[in-house]
Amino acid sequence: MRSEAPGPAGTAPAVQTGQGDSATGSSEVLHTAISHSIFSSSISSAAERISAILPQEEMGDRKCPLLFVQLNELLSTAAGLAWRETARWIKFEEKVEDGGERWSKPHIPALRLHSLFELRTCLQKGTVLLDLSAHSFKEIIGKALSAEPEVWEPELRDCLSALLLRQPLHRTTMAPLRVLTELSLAPCRGKAKSCPEPRTQFSETPLKEQLRNQFKKKLLPGAEVASIMVGEVDFLKKPFPVFIRLREAVTLGSLTEVALPSRFLFILLGPQAKAKAYHEIGRAMATLLTDELFQGIARQAKHQEDLIAGIDEFLDELTVLPPGKWDPSDRIPPPRCLSSPNKRISMRLREWKSHCNGNTTAVKDWPSLAHLHTSEELERTGRLFGGLIRDIRRKAHWYRSDFSDAMHIQCLSAVLYIYLATVTNAITFGGMLGDATANMQGVLESFLGTAFTGFIFCLFSGQPLTILSSTGPVLVFERLLFSFSEDYGLDYLEFRLWIGLWVAFFGLVLVATEASHLVQYFTRFTEEGFCALISLIFIYDSLKKMLSLAEAFPINWHYRADDVTLYSCTCNLSGPGHVSAGNNTLSPPPTALQQPPAALVALSRAQCLGRGGHLLGTSCQYVPDIALLSFLLFGGTFLCCTTLKHFKSSCYFPMGLRKLVSDFSIILAILIFCAIDAALGLETPKLLVPSELKPTNPMRGWIVFPFGANPWWICLASVVPAILVTILIFMDQQITAVILNRKEYKLQKGAGFHLDFLCVSLLMIFTSVMGLPWYVSATVISLAHMESLRKESTASAPGEQPEFLGIREQRLTGLVVFILTGVSVFLAPILKYIPMPVLYGVFLHMGVAALNSIQLTDRVRLLLMPAKHQPDHLYLRHVPLCRVHLFTFIQLLCLAMLWVIKSTAAAIVFPVMLLALVGIRKALECIFSLHDLSWLDNNLPAAARKEAEGKLHRKQEEQESNADEESELMHRQGREINISVN
Amino acid sequence: MRSEAPGPAGTAPAVQTGQGDSATGSSEVLHTAISHSIFSSSISSAAERISAILPQEEMGDRKCPLLFVQLNELLSTAAGLAWRETARWIKFEEKVEDGGERWSKPHIPALRLHSLFELRTCLQKGTVLLDLSAHSFKEIIGKALSAEPEVWEPELRDCLSALLLRQPLHRTTMAPLRVLTELSLAPCRGKAKSCPEPRTQFSETPLKEQLRNQFKKKLLPGAEVASIMVGEVDFLKKPFPVFIRLREAVTLGSLTEVALPSRFLFILLGPQAKAKAYHEIGRAMATLLTDELFQGIARQAKHQEDLIAGIDEFLDELTVLPPGKWDPSDRIPPPRCLSSPNKRISMRLREWKSHCNGNTTAVKDWPSLAHLHTSEELERTGRLFGGLIRDIRRKAHWYRSDFSDAMHIQCLSAVLYIYLATVTNAITFGGMLGDATANMQGVLESFLGTAFTGFIFCLFSGQPLTILSSTGPVLVFERLLFSFSEDYGLDYLEFRLWIGLWVAFFGLVLVATEASHLVQYFTRFTEEGFCALISLIFIYDSLKKMLSLAEAFPINWHYRADDVTLYSCTCNLSGPGHVSAGNNTLSPPPTALQQPPAALVALSRAQCLGRGGHLLGTSCQYVPDIALLSFLLFGGTFLCCTTLKHFKSSCYFPMGLRKLVSDFSIILAILIFCAIDAALGLETPKLLVPSELKPTNPMRGWIVFPFGANPWWICLASVVPAILVTILIFMDQQITAVILNRKEYKLQKGAGFHLDFLCVSLLMIFTSVMGLPWYVSATVISLAHMESLRKESTASAPGEQPEFLGIREQRLTGLVVFILTGVSVFLAPILKYIPMPVLYGVFLHMGVAALNSIQLTDRVRLLLMPAKHQPDHLYLRHVPLCRVHLFTFIQLLCLAMLWVIKSTAAAIVFPVMLLALVGIRKALECIFSLHDLSWLDNNLPAAARKEAEGKLHRKQEEQESNADEESELMHRQGREINISVN
Repeated sequence: MRSEAPGPAGTAPAVQTGQGDSATGSSEVLHTAISHSIFSSSISSAAERISAILPQEEMGDRKCPLLFVQLNELLSTAAGLAWRETARWIKFEEKVEDGGERWSKPHIPALRLHSLFELRTCLQKGTVLLDLSAHSFKEIIGKALSAEPEVWEPELRDCLSALLLRQPLHRTTMAPLRVLTELSLAPCRGKAKSCPEPRTQFSETPLKEQLRNQFKKKLLPGAEVASIMVGEVDFLKKPFPVFIRLREAVTLGSLTEVALPSRFLFILLGPQAKAKAYHEIGRAMATLLTDELFQGIARQAKHQEDLIAGIDEFLDELTVLPPGKWDPSDRIPPPRCLSSPNKRISMRLREWKSHCNGNTTAVKDWPSLAHLHTSEELERTGRLFGGLIRDIRRKAHWYRSDFSDAMHIQCLSAVLYIYLATVTNAITFGGMLGDATANMQGVLESFLGTAFTGFIFCLFSGQPLTILSSTGPVLVFERLLFSFSEDYGLDYLEFRLWIGLWVAFFGLVLVATEASHLVQYFTRFTEEGFCALISLIFIYDSLKKMLSLAEAFPINWHYRADDVTLYSCTCNLSGPGHVSAGNNTLSPPPTALQQPPAALVALSRAQCLGRGGHLLGTSCQYVPDIALLSFLLFGGTFLCCTTLKHFKSSCYFPMGLRKLVSDFSIILAILIFCAIDAALGLETPKLLVPSELKPTNPMRGWIVFPFGANPWWICLASVVPAILVTILIFMDQQITAVILNRKEYKLQKGAGFHLDFLCVSLLMIFTSVMGLPWYVSATVISLAHMESLRKESTASAPGEQPEFLGIREQRLTGLVVFILTGVSVFLAPILKYIPMPVLYGVFLHMGVAALNSIQLTDRVRLLLMPAKHQPDHLYLRHVPLCRVHLFTFIQLLCLAMLWVIKSTAAAIVFPVMLLALVGIRKALECIFSLHDLSWLDNNLPAAARKEAEGKLHRKQEEQESNADEESELMHRQGREINISVN
Repeated sequence: MRSEAPGPAGTAPAVQTGQGDSATGSSEVLHTAISHSIFSSSISSAAERISAILPQEEMGDRKCPLLFVQLNELLSTAAGLAWRETARWIKFEEKVEDGGERWSKPHIPALRLHSLFELRTCLQKGTVLLDLSAHSFKEIIGKALSAEPEVWEPELRDCLSALLLRQPLHRTTMAPLRVLTELSLAPCRGKAKSCPEPRTQFSETPLKEQLRNQFKKKLLPGAEVASIMVGEVDFLKKPFPVFIRLREAVTLGSLTEVALPSRFLFILLGPQAKAKAYHEIGRAMATLLTDELFQGIARQAKHQEDLIAGIDEFLDELTVLPPGKWDPSDRIPPPRCLSSPNKRISMRLREWKSHCNGNTTAVKDWPSLAHLHTSEELERTGRLFGGLIRDIRRKAHWYRSDFSDAMHIQCLSAVLYIYLATVTNAITFGGMLGDATANMQGVLESFLGTAFTGFIFCLFSGQPLTILSSTGPVLVFERLLFSFSEDYGLDYLEFRLWIGLWVAFFGLVLVATEASHLVQYFTRFTEEGFCALISLIFIYDSLKKMLSLAEAFPINWHYRADDVTLYSCTCNLSGPGHVSAGNNTLSPPPTALQQPPAALVALSRAQCLGRGGHLLGTSCQYVPDIALLSFLLFGGTFLCCTTLKHFKSSCYFPMGLRKLVSDFSIILAILIFCAIDAALGLETPKLLVPSELKPTNPMRGWIVFPFGANPWWICLASVVPAILVTILIFMDQQITAVILNRKEYKLQKGAGFHLDFLCVSLLMIFTSVMGLPWYVSATVISLAHMESLRKESTASAPGEQPEFLGIREQRLTGLVVFILTGVSVFLAPILKYIPMPVLYGVFLHMGVAALNSIQLTDRVRLLLMPAKHQPDHLYLRHVPLCRVHLFTFIQLLCLAMLWVIKSTAAAIVFPVMLLALVGIRKALECIFSLHDLSWLDNNLPAAARKEAEGKLHRKQEEQESNADEESELMHRQGREINISVN
């Protein structure tokens, strides 16, 4: 009502009556309600008033300081009346639970509409002091009570003042270590005695526990405090509501649990028997103050009516839940993502403006969706190597900072984590490659190659956060290439050298022609096809390997314990032929006496075979226990990986520990099952690692010579497979690069698609000459790298997700990781203890996890679900179920086709078929509408432009659909992160 | 505004202006808001008006007919404007999703407060026709349009009428079978062509698809329909809202998706560019109509103002969510349990009354909690056998109906289900008992005993829904008794006979003295201690058995494939001593030639040992593969049981199938793993079942003789163990009986605690004489029995839980189950294929499941959780965390004590220790407050009375705390159902 605290006594009555009679105020409520109503299009008085208080330009940029709101309630305890903190708000509500020793989970403050109306009346009828100057709580209370001298008799005033100046009891948060010590010192005693005795005298300086309060960490510097005090007293006849805004924020001693400057105060004392109503009004006030829009108004308000207008605007935006349909004691957890307050405010402002101007074409302000698929890095320059030059220029600018930015402790933990992940990857892929290529490339080669190429890439690449690794597709191709070489009698390494050289050449051509631009045609459809195929191959291969183990270590299923005396295996040196060794049945009848052959010798199997002998007997062909133990290890590793991976989302143990366990799940599972295997001591098949620094396969050297083993024309013929490999490498590298350089990672230093691909191509020459595996970017491990370098805001309100600030972009972590990997070559004596079934279990896990991470799997699951149980996916809200199923069906068909091609003689052309997916995706536009495709897939560049234009024409529901799309985008982004197999 | 449809033209202007100017109406909104406000205690005009419309007595009893609300919207399609169903309500909202072919999940209708205000204005300014008489939709439209003849020009009226009379398009639900046929006939075609072409002409008779609509099943007979029609048209200059209540509910042809009589109609047509606002107003109207209180008002309203008053009351009860904290597009799923509408209405009425009378002691109306622990069946009569006589009298009255009530198809499926469960139980417990007692009681005895005792019990007991079975505690005791007999050289069966006879005698004494009355002292604390101990014993035993299997079938961990030739086992008949058979190392050096012993004979192990020979060699002591396969079977069965059990809560496949799989999870798991075992063919240890009808152990007969094998004084000495068994049987039987006879099962025929215990005691005589296992009530299987006989309301609104009507109480299902079990004795040839590791896996599952079902486990988990991740358990809201932990800790201590006692020589007294738990629980009242105990446990009878009295004194927040307690009770009941191991 006034802009300065108690001035001349003449203004006091005006304060008292406030906005005059309630009828005027009430008409305003409905005015607000039917502002921009269907009956009239005039703007309400409240909105007018607010747009006058809040100038538009100010709203966009300026951010209100964070407000911490605390509710103190007057409760009767054993020691008489006492103020106690019962709830607090930053963004969401936290309540002190019944026992008084526990904060509830943060939840959305659900109010009764009734209490909001009552609060409105309080502000109308009560004392409102705006821009009060005071330096202590005592002074504020004094001024507030003397604002209306005629109402309060002096003794009542003293009573009230004494009551308000009692020391409130807070529920402060202690550091975890302190909690432990306190607990050990004072074990639980009955009836909450562990709380300190309430001080009766208000302290003007902050208390010890206030200063120690760990909760302060959640508040940004510059945060302010609003205190709300409500309670019932026996000596009051009518309620006494005061709203105070301080001109200067002042720290009011021990009033609130954190010692920060206070800005707002709301006091409501009243007669007895209404404690619940006062509590609810206090909550309503707190909720209002946590609303950004109302807070802005409260900070700028010049009159009491401005506050009322603020409430009216707040009312207008409320969502309401009907009574009886919903239990009000249920607490609604905070949503995972919220639209930013600034956006909401500017939306409201635009609404008012448009109503004022009668302008309904506010639609243009909305960002079109067309920007999603074009980024500056992928624009064509039209010149040879134009993109590359631009990449180099862009990255050179940051090169120095790529090292200086790494000076942070976070980088150390990132190095450790990524090192272990890289080593695990090198071991698993090395093992698989060794398997696929008869050890032409083994674990040792894998270590060396990873270390060298990774190091070089981190030093020169455009996106040094990328981690190079062997990847699934390359592994599949190597397997195909090796069996092709075997079938046609070619020297594998020499053939591969020529392919590598050609790939490097084609790579250069692609870089020169800025082919990375084509990346925009790789939509979800292509990515999913690619990913699903690789995942299936992983799963299939690991199971096939396990079955082949069962063949290598056959079990005697017909073993009878009673016949133990009839099983034997002896070495027969006398000559072959007279007893068939492969006899599966127990040939001699159990009762007959068996004549031992003449030349039975106690030689071991190797010695016997070495001397030209033959194994003779019923147990020679069987190996007991090993196959079954292998299956136990395989299943155990798989289950252990999966369980540990999901440990992050369980609610046991502190977050840090869970994250650690989850991040290291694979290495932990490997360690656990290696230990079990070692403890049992059975001769399970182990990983093959040379103990010296020489190639795994003794038949090859370190350098592959280009000629000699194969006919001369192979160097030309290898152009054909080279084209295939080029397609494969290009797709694998660029799909990963697109995922890593997504907008939501807020990368500052930009991407370098062309430069990255140049590095990969040139490294192909080196790896081919040395006979090392080929390397491209690995999605999962690179994402883990970025994830471990996240910068996040430390201060976030309880219940709110911390704000993501960006990635610590630098080259140093990668470099250190690969140096360490290089040093690990000398790990061979340890690595040879890893049993193969454990590695197969890890691969099964990787395949299943990757398959689970794609939307295709979700949609396949939908096929099995009755409609009413289907989850509330956004695409299901917008695309008819039968279209969704059709899309899934087409994808499965493509997948089946790819699988058939992979399994037949034409296997080697499968990279081309992957590329064909892009074409099929284009053809889908004939079957599906662009609208459906935009929900089920991303749009291709041309279609995206068309769709975006279409959007501009849709005027109605623009806001809603935009909001929907935004959250759907978040949704999509959340899902696609794990899309590829590393 | 008027109680009869268009009367004299003179009233029309009054309709037009409605409630006069909006200022009057708006003041009313705030009046409502500040009715019973903190500033005044007068009742609002709206509440006064409502209590006048709704006489109190009517509200309590009369239930409004169910109302189905459908929202039709005018949408522009390719064929021009068309009405389409876009949402429907019974209790919760279901929206037609974007594609137009899918219903959303039922959710709570969250509204904008704004649209409620707009709706209020609509009802004030628009036409309201109450008690209109009409027989067709056309007639209604005609009357509505002519209600205000001066406003609508004739051509406009024709336009509107034509528009309103277009045929709406519904989204009807087809029977699953029909969907399949439709899909196969018309596979998905582009752009929703599968929808039938919209009919343009409104049909006055219901359409085919309306009559076929499966959704009708959800509606109770007598349900009525409210239709809401909103849309924008270009020829209107201002909105045209009409609210119509029909005097007689009339079926309005094809207006709504179900062909039921319509009662209410709300039409809102208006100028263009506000479609979203109209939609929201339509939703608001629908939500209002689904509110029981408003619906009652709308049915009784005599004037337009009555409706407005109804809205105002509705507004007053709203829960609001602040803007910006919650994404309005998130749909809130319906809560699991809701307070009944009647209770809410009576609460509101009481509130008004109390305000009117100034009476604040409405508290007494609330039910006290004291009734929870006293039930009529457990009252003492004070006479010998008084309780028993009362039980017999009560049950005799229902005896005839116990057979006639079984005539329902549901009983057939219950029989099949419970039969399989009983057989599984008989097999598993029989196997375990055989193990524990050296086959003195085996599977065959288990079958015979189960069949006979179950049959007798079902025929004569007080609660024939109970299923008798061997239970965990009895199994534990038998194990202890057997080892005691072994240790002291007693004849187990004879000793047991005397114990059984004494137990029967003590049982009679307990029945005579009405000891079942003590059941009230078994609180959650005792039950949990009991259950946790048994569960742990199950888990421990199954693991111990598996380890003993590994010892019985030792694995050669030092086996080397290369040394295959050195492993052998031969029979040495020449004489013992010269080569040690147990030699663990490979004794002969591999290179040396081994001289074959002279007397090596090819005899099987049994033959060799039978002829006095010795086994000689390095492989004699090992059995390959069987131990590992056993572990695979054990782990597999456990995982399979657990997975299948949880299949019910997955969302794949229809509910019926999931429930079936989940219910039969154990038998399915057993079948699957028996099949796997049989397919592999290894000689795993199998269940021992005699193939003829003779005792499993050949050393015993069918009748146990009382004297002969043991000293004569044993018949007296067995009094001591008999007391222990009596305690055990009493606790086990009565805890189960209490759980089965809980109030929430709504049993009509009453319990029979005394009669049940008499039956159990008398059957002890029979089983002891015949040497069969002892039987008491099994909680889990009995609960499954009751669950399979649930009567539920078939019609429940989407999103609403079906109402539970009671249990089909009868004796026939039990009788048939046990007759079938008896016949199954001849299953022996099949049962012998069951491997023991599979049974151990089932037992592990049972132990883990029982352990997981008790609150103690939840609280132990809390110890591992950081406070902020802890689930929102109600007891955590009310009891300080440190007190909760203390309670958990004491329980764990008791458990540890029990375990120690069980494991030492004093093991046999453990039933007494169980009883000691009751004493410890009593002592806890010194450490914990009654308030804390009432949340963590139930109260003991004396304390419960005290606590209930205490409650009456707490006036404030009475309503809220009652609501809390009620839902907490539901919560508790939900948890405790699985409290005991069967």
